[in-house]
Amino acid sequence: MARLVLKFGGTSVADVDRIRNVARHVKREVDAGHEVAVVVSAMSGKTNELVSWCREASPIHDAREYDTVVASGEQVTAGLLAIVLQSMGVNARSWMGWQIPIATDTAHGAARIEDIDGSDIIRRFAEGQVAVIAGFQGIAPDRRIATLGRGGSDTSAVAVAAALKADRCDIYTDVDGVYTTDPRIEPKARRMDRISFEEMLEMASLGAKVLQVRSVELAMVHKVRTFVRSSFEDPDAPGMGDFENPPGTLICDEDEIVEQQVVTGIAYAKDEAQISLRRVEDRPGIAAAIFGPLADAGVNVDMIVQNISEDGTRTDMTFTVPASDLDKATTIIENAKSDMRFDVIQSEGGLTKVSVIGIGMRSHTGVAATAFKALANRGINIRAITTSEIKISILIDGEFSELAVRTLHSVYGLDKARP
Amino acid sequence: MARLVLKFGGTSVADVDRIRNVARHVKREVDAGHEVAVVVSAMSGKTNELVSWCREASPIHDAREYDTVVASGEQVTAGLLAIVLQSMGVNARSWMGWQIPIATDTAHGAARIEDIDGSDIIRRFAEGQVAVIAGFQGIAPDRRIATLGRGGSDTSAVAVAAALKADRCDIYTDVDGVYTTDPRIEPKARRMDRISFEEMLEMASLGAKVLQVRSVELAMVHKVRTFVRSSFEDPDAPGMGDFENPPGTLICDEDEIVEQQVVTGIAYAKDEAQISLRRVEDRPGIAAAIFGPLADAGVNVDMIVQNISEDGTRTDMTFTVPASDLDKATTIIENAKSDMRFDVIQSEGGLTKVSVIGIGMRSHTGVAATAFKALANRGINIRAITTSEIKISILIDGEFSELAVRTLHSVYGLDKARP
Repeated sequence: MARLVLKFGGTSVADVDRIRNVARHVKREVDAGHEVAVVVSAMSGKTNELVSWCREASPIHDAREYDTVVASGEQVTAGLLAIVLQSMGVNARSWMGWQIPIATDTAHGAARIEDIDGSDIIRRFAEGQVAVIAGFQGIAPDRRIATLGRGGSDTSAVAVAAALKADRCDIYTDVDGVYTTDPRIEPKARRMDRISFEEMLEMASLGAKVLQVRSVELAMVHKVRTFVRSSFEDPDAPGMGDFENPPGTLICDEDEIVEQQVVTGIAYAKDEAQISLRRVEDRPGIAAAIFGPLADAGVNVDMIVQNISEDGTRTDMTFTVPASDLDKATTIIENAKSDMRFDVIQSEGGLTKVSVIGIGMRSHTGVAATAFKALANRGINIRAITTSEIKISILIDGEFSELAVRTLHSVYGLDKARP
Repeated sequence: MARLVLKFGGTSVADVDRIRNVARHVKREVDAGHEVAVVVSAMSGKTNELVSWCREASPIHDAREYDTVVASGEQVTAGLLAIVLQSMGVNARSWMGWQIPIATDTAHGAARIEDIDGSDIIRRFAEGQVAVIAGFQGIAPDRRIATLGRGGSDTSAVAVAAALKADRCDIYTDVDGVYTTDPRIEPKARRMDRISFEEMLEMASLGAKVLQVRSVELAMVHKVRTFVRSSFEDPDAPGMGDFENPPGTLICDEDEIVEQQVVTGIAYAKDEAQISLRRVEDRPGIAAAIFGPLADAGVNVDMIVQNISEDGTRTDMTFTVPASDLDKATTIIENAKSDMRFDVIQSEGGLTKVSVIGIGMRSHTGVAATAFKALANRGINIRAITTSEIKISILIDGEFSELAVRTLHSVYGLDKARP
């Protein structure tokens, strides 16, 4: 017998029929003798509808009222799932964030969970009761509903799993696991059995979109074994209830990964834009002068590359922003030109960042060189490079995106089945 | 300066534009210096949608989960109205039932309010804050959301007004007051300035549909001056903000009604059915034998008429039920024929009950005779009669409904403007 937290996202609970399918997944685990808590999102489309009403009510709105409105979506799903579970003979009850309680900080609209009191739920596990928890919400110190920001139900699930000391947190979603790269681009992409928290964090933040970054961070901190699997498979298909080896990808501590690969996956992010400032005066504080105003305006600066110019008094500064922020960013920089002291600003959209990710990189050399050589052989020009301990990111022209992903996926042997 | 509770129903808050209109009504009262609490229903259609999801989830469902799902509708409206009010510069915040708290009994799905702690709201009145309260909901002793049953927002409003010791509870609805009869049937129907609680209770329970019966009972018990008015008029039209004499109908204690009429209004209820049991054995307990099983099955028996038969050992028993319950009622009676000991059962649908209501009846004689004579003059056959202190109800064939209403409206002089 194990203790499991199952999380189902918006598309998995889009209507009552799908909620019934979710209930079959839950019942399977209950019938296997596990203690089960379920975390649910709003029915797909509902959150957008509620958010649009708030915007229509006023473009600038009190985050506490926004939270009150938007949190209602998860409330509905939790109640409906409890009803369906009961109709299948499963003892279940719904829990709102304020009932558990899931205590958050005061940052309404993007709150952080501070504490979860799991004692009531654990007590009811002993009575065989399933807890159906409204995701995405908690209660702030002002005794008002707080939401965790978009995609927050993943975070709710991981936090609940940590509080309940669950053996595993199963994230049911519309994909059946984490792949070595995007299967729509590279059909040879393989589903990984396991990936480390650190690698998943890079995959998630680089656009793999399976899990919210914050939920992976939280899972890493609390060492919550998190499992990504599909909610759309037949809940009673063979192997679905296999506790040791169900179909999907386990995100876990690297110690749990026996067969470590040097490179685990290839991620990419399209629609990047590059801004270059030529002949910036090379003095202390210049980076702050440039990036401070951008940060204040909420522009998310990603790769930053700085070269020393020939005469040593001027430098070239290149960085990337999401293409959607390009106009805003260039306007801010033009307006602050006198502070920033550069000669020319150049910018270009339509770029892609491809990233090679692998925890094994830390102990292997030549990983970057292999990437550069493989891209060069295909005639793909590299515009910028940044690296971390477990990741190499390369900025290229958008038209080469798919070719670059396939090339890198192949050169590190990810096409081949693991031994 | 007065303390007001304003209540807006589903059609008044059907979308964000209408909510904006509601906010203008609220702002008008705030600008006039009043302390204001607002009680809101779900956006029209939302409650039905939520209820249908519950039914789809399972025809028989846990009332606590039903409450969790259905109460979300009012939560959304309360948050949205608070946002709109703030955008108009009105200090406002939303309150859920559990936040105030509005304590109910344990009868989830049709709970009764047991206590409202108005202290927080009153404290914030002093800071100029408007309370926007989700109607229809409270918190049960199990710390779970409880709803008051359909139309419960009227009851919420009156209960809040009693708890806050409000000077008046304004029920904004899609009609502009209480009329002497249905204006769709009798164009000469006039809006009453005032009606007593007792009369309104008869009007409401007889199908006038302006206010929920329970809310009127509650208003009567707590002597909450309740005012019915239209939410669809221009909030800033002349007279709308007149505290002493706004457009609408005041439901109040009879002491407040100076010019008492003998008859105040004519109500009607269509789609009634009549069941007659012929030659019922006239013995003690026979009424219980007949009506017990019907009550157990939830059939709402209304008018009951019993005549002694010629030989004194048998009696004829006639009663009415809603036409929609007729088949159920006759089946129950047929099945229990051995207990009930009657000869023949006769039934007929398509009937109408018209009622003459007036507190002045208590001190005037001949009111009933006037009705019978007027109907006879029009050739309308009377099938059954029941009377109370302030009401005469007459069962007639449905085809005469409109004629009977107009005849009675005229014979008591209700067509004419009051002096």
